Amino acid sequence: MHHPIILITNDDGYQAKGIRVLIEEMRKIGGTVIAIAPRVGKSGMSHAITFNEPLRLRKVESAENYKFYEFSGTPVDCVKMGLDKFFKKTTLKPDLLVSGINHGSNASICCIYSGTVGAAREGAVNGIPSIAFSLTDFHADADFEPYRSHIQTITRAMLAQNTLPTNVFLNVNFPKVENPKDLKEIKICRQTKGVWIEEFDKRTDPQNVDYFWLMGHFDNYEPEATDSDEYLLKQKHTTVVPLKIESTDMEALGILQKMIK
Amino acid sequence: MHHPIILITNDDGYQAKGIRVLIEEMRKIGGTVIAIAPRVGKSGMSHAITFNEPLRLRKVESAENYKFYEFSGTPVDCVKMGLDKFFKKTTLKPDLLVSGINHGSNASICCIYSGTVGAAREGAVNGIPSIAFSLTDFHADADFEPYRSHIQTITRAMLAQNTLPTNVFLNVNFPKVENPKDLKEIKICRQTKGVWIEEFDKRTDPQNVDYFWLMGHFDNYEPEATDSDEYLLKQKHTTVVPLKIESTDMEALGILQKMIK
Repeated sequence: MHHPIILITNDDGYQAKGIRVLIEEMRKIGGTVIAIAPRVGKSGMSHAITFNEPLRLRKVESAENYKFYEFSGTPVDCVKMGLDKFFKKTTLKPDLLVSGINHGSNASICCIYSGTVGAAREGAVNGIPSIAFSLTDFHADADFEPYRSHIQTITRAMLAQNTLPTNVFLNVNFPKVENPKDLKEIKICRQTKGVWIEEFDKRTDPQNVDYFWLMGHFDNYEPEATDSDEYLLKQKHTTVVPLKIESTDMEALGILQKMIK
Repeated sequence: MHHPIILITNDDGYQAKGIRVLIEEMRKIGGTVIAIAPRVGKSGMSHAITFNEPLRLRKVESAENYKFYEFSGTPVDCVKMGLDKFFKKTTLKPDLLVSGINHGSNASICCIYSGTVGAAREGAVNGIPSIAFSLTDFHADADFEPYRSHIQTITRAMLAQNTLPTNVFLNVNFPKVENPKDLKEIKICRQTKGVWIEEFDKRTDPQNVDYFWLMGHFDNYEPEATDSDEYLLKQKHTTVVPLKIESTDMEALGILQKMIK
């Protein structure tokens, strides 16, 4: 694919370092790049959409074959606005949607809560090959340099293929490495089974009213599973997990037919 | 199960009519009922969580074996708070989580965007049998009376069973009926394939700045599929779809291993 159209978003907001790196990498591919990212950070927004309040769109910058907007909605709203504004009245559609690079891991069960992954899922819902990219380092100044070649490898493979079902999208995580040489090769693997255990931090405000901060820690149900993303990230591999758009558990249909009469 | 502990939430907010009906039905079962619902409407919040702002919890009412709180977070935050506040320091856990009754359909792809379904998914993530209930009528004064017996049938079956995998939860939708006699029996079925086509409604504010309302219409990819929830709802059946917690597409692993090297 010589001149692909690539749609980009993220959930950390348009000013995040991660989306800048992703825009640079996508512009190297030589097609058209359209980026629409949230006005402010929208981490943890999952697949949320905004229909109860008006939304605002503003152009940030543009160049030949490149446009960058900020939008007041969620990451999924950004995908919807991108498709509506640039493609609805054309016969074109994006050849690829990429989301990220997220500042923070979206491995294991985090993919359920993630706005970065939500945006990629929305791409897949619309039949667009889609990839979520995340780095296991939540700092605003995280170093994305070691991962540029892996981004190119995965993106170009996704653009070249026509065998992946359209209801499948990729959840890519990069391990934080102290030295670029520590980064190991890309591994295709599965989502780790685990759960976030909540611990609300209760405090009292100056008016003597309680409030809570959502906190938690990750409980890995299978820390020794060598084919799981958490394990491979700890070994400093880049991980690629194919995720499905959520769908019916066909095996459970028979159980339920006996259960509910 | 004689005295189950049932956790309840919704996404329309604690003052919605739908959660009142659900609380009444759950209290009839004769166990302990704990309801924690959003302070304001949180429709379309999917599986979103709130960790960047403080959250507030307030008791609305209580009676013997019954407590009702409102919480300033999302539906998934409500589930997390319920588990943290009432169960973390005990050996107990809820026997069932129910979410709804939503004012509006959550059939087909709507389950991806729904806060009602998000809350049930969060229950399943925590290993709790979970059900999302929705009515295909978004009006605030929707009539929930025709569905009370179906709620009892499905809830009691879920409490009595021990065969459904813990990573599966139920997405139940009730068809709007003009006459209670029009309601047909419960059908176990699968999620309809389809997509929401967006149409942002562009307007201009008094300061002459553009803004957008997210709108859209549902495009059913398989309107004639007799085993799909949309079809069966049109026939006035109550539909029960077993949904999986999102997970790896194992078939795609092999494709990707050839694709990305």
